[in-house]
Amino acid sequence: MALIVKKFGGTSVGSIERIRDVAKQVLLDKHNGDQVVVVVSAMAGETNRLVGLSKDIMSMPEGREYDVLVSTGEQVTIALLALALQDVAAPAISLLAHQVKILTDSAHSKARIKMIDDSRIRQELSAGNIVVVPGFQGIDENNNVTTLGRGGSDTTAVALAAALQADVCQIFTDVDGVFTTDPNLVSGAKKIERISYEEMLEMASTGAKVLQIRSVELAAKYKVPLEVRSSFHNQPGTLVVQEDANMESQLVTGISFDRNEAKIAVREVPDVPGIASKVFAPISEANINVDMIVQNISLEGKTDLTFTVTHADLEKALSIVKQVAQEIGAKHVETSEDVAKVSVIGLGMRSHAGIASKMFQTLAKENINVQMISTSEIKISIIINDKYTELAVRALHEAFELDKK
Amino acid sequence: MALIVKKFGGTSVGSIERIRDVAKQVLLDKHNGDQVVVVVSAMAGETNRLVGLSKDIMSMPEGREYDVLVSTGEQVTIALLALALQDVAAPAISLLAHQVKILTDSAHSKARIKMIDDSRIRQELSAGNIVVVPGFQGIDENNNVTTLGRGGSDTTAVALAAALQADVCQIFTDVDGVFTTDPNLVSGAKKIERISYEEMLEMASTGAKVLQIRSVELAAKYKVPLEVRSSFHNQPGTLVVQEDANMESQLVTGISFDRNEAKIAVREVPDVPGIASKVFAPISEANINVDMIVQNISLEGKTDLTFTVTHADLEKALSIVKQVAQEIGAKHVETSEDVAKVSVIGLGMRSHAGIASKMFQTLAKENINVQMISTSEIKISIIINDKYTELAVRALHEAFELDKK
Repeated sequence: MALIVKKFGGTSVGSIERIRDVAKQVLLDKHNGDQVVVVVSAMAGETNRLVGLSKDIMSMPEGREYDVLVSTGEQVTIALLALALQDVAAPAISLLAHQVKILTDSAHSKARIKMIDDSRIRQELSAGNIVVVPGFQGIDENNNVTTLGRGGSDTTAVALAAALQADVCQIFTDVDGVFTTDPNLVSGAKKIERISYEEMLEMASTGAKVLQIRSVELAAKYKVPLEVRSSFHNQPGTLVVQEDANMESQLVTGISFDRNEAKIAVREVPDVPGIASKVFAPISEANINVDMIVQNISLEGKTDLTFTVTHADLEKALSIVKQVAQEIGAKHVETSEDVAKVSVIGLGMRSHAGIASKMFQTLAKENINVQMISTSEIKISIIINDKYTELAVRALHEAFELDKK
Repeated sequence: MALIVKKFGGTSVGSIERIRDVAKQVLLDKHNGDQVVVVVSAMAGETNRLVGLSKDIMSMPEGREYDVLVSTGEQVTIALLALALQDVAAPAISLLAHQVKILTDSAHSKARIKMIDDSRIRQELSAGNIVVVPGFQGIDENNNVTTLGRGGSDTTAVALAAALQADVCQIFTDVDGVFTTDPNLVSGAKKIERISYEEMLEMASTGAKVLQIRSVELAAKYKVPLEVRSSFHNQPGTLVVQEDANMESQLVTGISFDRNEAKIAVREVPDVPGIASKVFAPISEANINVDMIVQNISLEGKTDLTFTVTHADLEKALSIVKQVAQEIGAKHVETSEDVAKVSVIGLGMRSHAGIASKMFQTLAKENINVQMISTSEIKISIIINDKYTELAVRALHEAFELDKK
């Protein structure tokens, strides 16, 4: 008998028909004799509808009451799923965040889970119930409703799995699993059977959208086996687990890309200590996330400082940087929006040399110019001209034989 | 400084524009220095939408999960109203049933309030907050969400006013107050300024739809002054209060009618003890509400037993009665759907004779035949042919000079 936490997103519960399908899915585990906790999102479109209502009242709705409002989306889904389960004669009970006691901090709309009390859920599971829990929400110490921010349902599922020491946390989605690269771009992309938390984190951080970074971090921290699988059929998906000996034999696990990058270059900056901090401190204060940063070697006491931000943040970042550039005596500031980041990820890099070299050779053969490079222990990311994204990803996918798995 | 509980129904909060209007309304009291608790229903149409979702899953949705579902309707409204109040710079906080602690029994969808903890609300009021509470819902002793059934928002408001010993409980609605009779039927109908709990109860029980019977009973029990007023303008409405000397001077306060009655007559029943119980026990077991019952005097050991039920219950009641009639040897069963009940209500009846006589004279003058009569201390109800309803109500309204108030 296993204890399984299953999470279904907004599309998977987007209609009464889909909710019935989820009920049937869950019933299979129940018939296997497993104990099941189901975490659900709001029905697709519902959160946007609720946010729309609040925006009709004020331009920037937020805070405590906003969370009271949007949390009703998941509450509707848990009730409907519990009813659908009862309709197929499966004993089921929904538990709201205050009934489980999913305790968070008080940062409304971006709360972090501090503690989950497992006693009530265990009691319901022991009584033979399937337990249905809303994702994305909690309560703070004063019993106020809080929400975790968009995508928080994955985090709820993983945190519940950790608290219950579940055997697996299954994230149901509209794709079959995690792929070696985006199958929409490369038809030879293959589903990955097992991937380590570290690789999954790098994949998620560099553009793969299948899992939220936060939920993978949490799964890694509490060693919760995570499975990404399709809600449209009953095939195994991708297991995200602790690194094992078998994994190391693969040099490269996947290739991700992100076309939402913009590049800012500050040219001919006087190369004195503290310059980087003068540039990045005001950007960070403006809540702008900087992704890659590259600083060239100094030539005649001058250096070039280049970094990337998202397209949405470009304008705001640029106005800050232009002012700083003047203050520190830089020559000028250049920007480029037509750039993309392509990343090669694999545990094998730790012990095998030559991956970077192979990557650059492959790109050179295709005449693709590399504008920036950034590496971690298990990842190499490059910035290239956006128009070469598809070509680069395909060439690298073939070069590292990911289509032959 | 007064403490006021204000309740706004689904139409009064039916759109963002109406919710803004409610916020402005509430702000007036706040500027008067009053403490305000606002009870709101779900936005018009929302409860039906939610019930519709559950009916797409099962034909008879009910119980614990159904309550989790439908209670989201009011939760949306409290959040939106709290945001709208904050948008006009009024400090406001919403409190859900579990946050206030509105304790009910566990009868899902028809729960009764057992206790309201006033401490959290008082704390928020003292902190200068307007407190917004969802009507219609509570929690039971195990922290399960419960609902009070349709119209339960009035009950929540009165119960809160009782718990807080509020100075007044204002029920905002789409009419100007309680009228001497339905102004849609009689153009001379006048708004009643003050009415006693007993009269209001009789009015509500005999067809006046402006207040829920349950909430008037509760107001009477805890002596909560109730005011029915329009949410469309700022005019005083009708005060429902304890009987006072001034009220007694009026013989008749109002005339109500109910066109949803159907009559069943069991003819020539052997007049032996226990016959009535043989007829009404199975009807009551089938959960059918019997309204008026009349038994004629016995003629040659036979009697006629006549009673009324709602149109919706007629078919079910008839099939039961036909079987019983055979068992007890009655001659036959007759029914009539084209009947209406007209009631004359007034505290004055207790001390003044002649009201019944004047009522019957008035009807006789109009050639209206009275089919059944039933009286209480402050009410006379009659059953007549439905086609005479309008004529009867108008004639009685004039005869008792209700248009001259």
